[in-house]
Amino acid sequence: MAALATSRTSRWEPTARWAIRHREVVDAAATAFAEKGFDGASTRDIAERLGIRAASLYYYLPSKEAALAAVCELGVRDFIANLRGILDRSEPAAEKLRSAVANHLAPLRTHPAADYIRVFLRHRHQLPDGPRQAVAKLAAEYQGLMEQIFVEGVASGEFRADLDPKLATLALLGLCNSVIGARSLPRGASIDDFIDEYSKIAIHGVISGDAARKSRRKKKSAEED
Amino acid sequence: MAALATSRTSRWEPTARWAIRHREVVDAAATAFAEKGFDGASTRDIAERLGIRAASLYYYLPSKEAALAAVCELGVRDFIANLRGILDRSEPAAEKLRSAVANHLAPLRTHPAADYIRVFLRHRHQLPDGPRQAVAKLAAEYQGLMEQIFVEGVASGEFRADLDPKLATLALLGLCNSVIGARSLPRGASIDDFIDEYSKIAIHGVISGDAARKSRRKKKSAEED
Repeated sequence: MAALATSRTSRWEPTARWAIRHREVVDAAATAFAEKGFDGASTRDIAERLGIRAASLYYYLPSKEAALAAVCELGVRDFIANLRGILDRSEPAAEKLRSAVANHLAPLRTHPAADYIRVFLRHRHQLPDGPRQAVAKLAAEYQGLMEQIFVEGVASGEFRADLDPKLATLALLGLCNSVIGARSLPRGASIDDFIDEYSKIAIHGVISGDAARKSRRKKKSAEED
Repeated sequence: MAALATSRTSRWEPTARWAIRHREVVDAAATAFAEKGFDGASTRDIAERLGIRAASLYYYLPSKEAALAAVCELGVRDFIANLRGILDRSEPAAEKLRSAVANHLAPLRTHPAADYIRVFLRHRHQLPDGPRQAVAKLAAEYQGLMEQIFVEGVASGEFRADLDPKLATLALLGLCNSVIGARSLPRGASIDDFIDEYSKIAIHGVISGDAARKSRRKKKSAEED
């Protein structure tokens, strides 16, 4: 409910009914922005999805910009909450990494969760001052949590000692976001295929076990020369 | 010169002087679009960079759309030519993969090469019909060459037998394009740092040698149970 607190300045608590309806309105905005773009979608598009008049929207969101802010904020808050849960587990870092990839990509399976993350990636730069900085702060928080997985893995010796956690974080986000940004998945591939293959590449790379052993032996004998 | 042939329908060969000037005009367009966006940049912005009148541009490029088509086409053609050269080498697949990452990211070091690739990534969807399909075909050709590296690596046993070359290609492009799409590099990191770390992650993953050995032993004994 933290998101509601920031999007309403009133000192009254929202009713349960209002909160449910508010989320429906934000869901509809996420889908409208994902389908038509922020510039292309009108408040009428959002209202039509809900079967209400555009004027009734203002009870939940005062403007199209406020709707974009709510979509970006709610989207990233869900990601952060889940990633915190993953970090708190007592598991090897590689397991946490795999769960983080799954957390990042799983929303693509369901509607409107996929719309939230697409709108976040494509349109957060169009937010007005204030919300833009607030959302950037949340994005940085998410990135920081991801980085923590790499820091922990290097500290425990599970990940390479020469790994740069900052660059590894950017690599993982780039990897995952490219799936989300794609207009369509390649034929025959499911989100689960992506989660499997992308987390394997991030953890083990593309090299086979045999080739990895050979390359290590070569490196070792070169160091001994 | 293939790019010139497609952008001019005249049956006369361009003079060497025209060809040099044409490339300067396309360079200026790439920089203008990268800095102000395709919608934000005017033909006047392009002309001003060259110190000529906007009307003189039309001798080289008939419209802003033609300028965008030339930028996207020349940009991706350079990438393809270099990647073909890498594929023709008789090197291990992992070496080729590293060179492909370097080929993809090295243009970021120089101006205006970085502008070409940024404009390609951000604005190719705004191309009019015809050029848009031509550029999509070139992009598919580039993606196909990248995929060939993974196919070769799996066939030679150097890469994992269970690797999906299609998904691995998308992963690698996502990884590299995230650096190009970023508004700025993290403080202290250079393009070479990205090339090093990203090709290491793609080839070997983030796992340490010790952890990889342990995980293989565990997998093997589970299979024997």
